[in-house]
Amino acid sequence: MASFINRRQWIVEWGQCDPAGIVFNSRFFEVFDQSTWLLFEAALGVKPHELGTAYNIVGIPLVDARANFLKPAKFGDVVEIASQVAEFRRSSFEVEHRLSIDGELAIEGIETRVWAAHNKTNPEKFGAVAIPAEVVARFK
Amino acid sequence: MASFINRRQWIVEWGQCDPAGIVFNSRFFEVFDQSTWLLFEAALGVKPHELGTAYNIVGIPLVDARANFLKPAKFGDVVEIASQVAEFRRSSFEVEHRLSIDGELAIEGIETRVWAAHNKTNPEKFGAVAIPAEVVARFK
Amino acid sequence: MASFINRRQWIVEWGQCDPAGIVFNSRFFEVFDQSTWLLFEAALGVKPHELGTAYNIVGIPLVDARANFLKPAKFGDVVEIASQVAEFRRSSFEVEHRLSIDGELAIEGIETRVWAAHNKTNPEKFGAVAIPAEVVARFK
Amino acid sequence: MASFINRRQWIVEWGQCDPAGIVFNSRFFEVFDQSTWLLFEAALGVKPHELGTAYNIVGIPLVDARANFLKPAKFGDVVEIASQVAEFRRSSFEVEHRLSIDGELAIEGIETRVWAAHNKTNPEKFGAVAIPAEVVARFK
Repeated sequence: MASFINRRQWIVEWGQCDPAGIVFNSRFFEVFDQSTWLLFEAALGVKPHELGTAYNIVGIPLVDARANFLKPAKFGDVVEIASQVAEFRRSSFEVEHRLSIDGELAIEGIETRVWAAHNKTNPEKFGAVAIPAEVVARFK
Repeated sequence: MASFINRRQWIVEWGQCDPAGIVFNSRFFEVFDQSTWLLFEAALGVKPHELGTAYNIVGIPLVDARANFLKPAKFGDVVEIASQVAEFRRSSFEVEHRLSIDGELAIEGIETRVWAAHNKTNPEKFGAVAIPAEVVARFK
Repeated sequence: MASFINRRQWIVEWGQCDPAGIVFNSRFFEVFDQSTWLLFEAALGVKPHELGTAYNIVGIPLVDARANFLKPAKFGDVVEIASQVAEFRRSSFEVEHRLSIDGELAIEGIETRVWAAHNKTNPEKFGAVAIPAEVVARFK
Repeated sequence: MASFINRRQWIVEWGQCDPAGIVFNSRFFEVFDQSTWLLFEAALGVKPHELGTAYNIVGIPLVDARANFLKPAKFGDVVEIASQVAEFRRSSFEVEHRLSIDGELAIEGIETRVWAAHNKTNPEKFGAVAIPAEVVARFK
């Protein structure tokens, strides 16, 4: 079954580029993070800052992030971002971001995140818990 | 005569906020910079990355920047940005950015920039030159 | 009476520079903020993340920030930073940062901050309170 | 044969942390990048901004970056960074960054970079070229 894809556009800013005139690598990880929040908002119908309350979780912390830089992005480039959850596991999931410029894939990002809740016996701590089936269903 | 105002919207991202849960101050200066590029694009009809070529300038470098933080901006806040050139002088100008949340002014920014071109006798250097009347006219 | 000055060095990073090859303006405001934390640590002998607890305050939030860019800073430049409280008022103060490269003043920054504590009747809110005389004394 | 390791310390800044009170993920990629420049400076004895001229290259652009977040880093944390080239291939190499807090590994980063030079027949373009043996030798 096809996965829910959220699409958005990003126009590269001057301050996001380095002396080589291309987007500095860390900026893509900012873009991936925000794209994940927007993907969840689109799929779940819940505002990012209300996600914790809506599902009784601490959040969806990142445990692993990767990017593959195929082509550079330059100041003024119009970048099309397509984000989806590539895989749901019991308490973790993979978010895939594909960034294209002029119809060509330029940067790929993959984030591994966990569905994290406060520990019931020790509320100061939190850890990965099972992702509700209703959440997974919304991404299909 | 009323000045040309460019309006845009900024939705505050998670990664732009600090441990107090509010936008970290340096982020506003990123927003001001990008807002100035977009103001010039809207007024002049020239893409930001083509501005130098279109007017035979190096750019519009910043010589002074200020921000006044009246109310904090939080993750998920929808910020309305209104940007305009508050004053044109011979070779410099003031850009004013007013950021509002829920209809209330939250942050004010003022940038002083110069219209900078390469030095004719020494192309390695550049300095402030007179702003063309046609440019000034576009902001009215 | 001379004011306490904290000095530190900053070597400009590649990722802090823009396509013009110079430090992007917002980066200076990151540097000012960190310089203020380090100034307070040096003057008060309290680690930045323990400042709130040590003085029963929420923090020292920024209400106004300004920078004057006299000379650009480039990748690899060794920037000498001298920070001091230029003025203490009842509940607010001005921090001045002077950034020099090769012995010449390159960038000046001024931050206006407040000494902020939780409201006694409504702990959800906070506001500016009088700066303790012992704190002011440490900066002389 | 053991690989050359460069060590440095990073004290986590307020502005590098997010509303969860921990370092925002993109900041680690800034730290990795700067750590690579410093590793090369230490191994080769060449200032980062002189690397291109010294070896007749465009630079060492990033083609892939990964991070594994084992433990969070918080404001004020003293992070020990150990960086080394984990592998040299013909024209590309892997840089490994290990970030420890209180003696425990907290974040691992791996960057894949290429040794890039201008194309001899078309100087507008550049591509990966063989890494000089003398460069590889300096990292042993």
